[in-house]
Amino acid sequence: MTSRLLLEYDGSAFAGWASQPGQRTVQAEVERALRVVLRRDAVPVTVAGRTDTGVHALGQVASYAGPPAPVSGLNALLPDDVAALSCVAAADGFDARRDATSRAYCYRVLARRGRAGLDRGRALWWPHRVDFDALSECARALVGTHDFTAFTPTDTDHVRFSRDVYTAEWRRSAIDGVRERLEFWIEADAFMRQMNRVVVGTMLEVGGGRRTLEDFVALLAGRPRAEAGPTAPACGLYLVGVGYGGERVLT
Amino acid sequence: MTSRLLLEYDGSAFAGWASQPGQRTVQAEVERALRVVLRRDAVPVTVAGRTDTGVHALGQVASYAGPPAPVSGLNALLPDDVAALSCVAAADGFDARRDATSRAYCYRVLARRGRAGLDRGRALWWPHRVDFDALSECARALVGTHDFTAFTPTDTDHVRFSRDVYTAEWRRSAIDGVRERLEFWIEADAFMRQMNRVVVGTMLEVGGGRRTLEDFVALLAGRPRAEAGPTAPACGLYLVGVGYGGERVLT
Repeated sequence: MTSRLLLEYDGSAFAGWASQPGQRTVQAEVERALRVVLRRDAVPVTVAGRTDTGVHALGQVASYAGPPAPVSGLNALLPDDVAALSCVAAADGFDARRDATSRAYCYRVLARRGRAGLDRGRALWWPHRVDFDALSECARALVGTHDFTAFTPTDTDHVRFSRDVYTAEWRRSAIDGVRERLEFWIEADAFMRQMNRVVVGTMLEVGGGRRTLEDFVALLAGRPRAEAGPTAPACGLYLVGVGYGGERVLT
Repeated sequence: MTSRLLLEYDGSAFAGWASQPGQRTVQAEVERALRVVLRRDAVPVTVAGRTDTGVHALGQVASYAGPPAPVSGLNALLPDDVAALSCVAAADGFDARRDATSRAYCYRVLARRGRAGLDRGRALWWPHRVDFDALSECARALVGTHDFTAFTPTDTDHVRFSRDVYTAEWRRSAIDGVRERLEFWIEADAFMRQMNRVVVGTMLEVGGGRRTLEDFVALLAGRPRAEAGPTAPACGLYLVGVGYGGERVLT
């Protein structure tokens, strides 16, 4: 029997998803809670997106061999900064990582003069010049199949550097009614390590007039990492959701 | 010379806005930072909305006699959970409280089975039944001039219990792309202590089928506090912004 778990977490105090000796990780917390609830010695979980240190998740998906665990029981055992949203039976052999057909991420930017009073550690504070139209043009250029070699560390385990980007757009959201926030939304078949953060860091160079759109587009043809911009901080990045069977998260 | 200060704060760790001996308050932090930046012995500030313990602000407005302070200097002196967004010269004699013609608030509800992993202390977790249409009907009934006696504690300093509600609506927002959140947005000339929280607590009774819309509407005619519902937790409430000169915050 296979189960599918939907998780939300605040990445601030975690050394990312993947278990590492001596580090506080989301995987270790989730597996510990599952062991207690299911009364087993080990419940190894497979995850759709191995988020890095400090990256948040609104809709992470994990799978494990075993019956579904009650959400309330899991949440009572999980620490405050991780919550189970649902846990259901999945098709036998369901694998959250292998079966995922897309992942969607959001990167939040507070583009304003004053730092965050509320969203500390939840968004990048960007008190610099930023041209929303230039950002939007970069996003449009991202859609399609490109070689993202320039957007992941040189020291890499990845063997394939091409990714299919289904959706990419910058949104100005006024969710607060008054204060604006910039959000970059992207959905692709898969992402390489730090890829979203380097993409955002490089787009912000274009938005600030320090790099041209043409230069950004050229990077998408497999240029070396050194030619792209800086890695934007992890705190602004959210794994929004994971698509299965070709169903998209962002519509 | 009078200045006008726009503030954002996380109310979680504050005993509200107003200074109180031995308590950590937003007012005390702001006045302390202003004293240092302006090199004065005292800089008393007047605020548009005296938020209660635990209530957040996205756009609080305060005024003081003195020149504008540099935002970066203020933010360097303010604690992490308060930020100055702007500080500008105002018309002489401007009073953030007296001159305010409206205040807008938002109340956030996570209506779902699993508790918050990310928005801990930033929204009410409501794992109970809730009928969005019933909530919306309550909101519509709020618009106009009503006697809100039922929605503020009996032990009160208020002498006038009538308030003009300009806007009131529930929104289902899918800001996360996947996860839904319910938000109650309201703008009125002014609010009494705890008024928004009792309004929300009572609407959630209607949304859960434990109170009728007719009953809710009857409360708006000056019924006693005991007939209204519970006070919803402060953590879900945000002061969104303050209107001056008749200009509305919510449009």
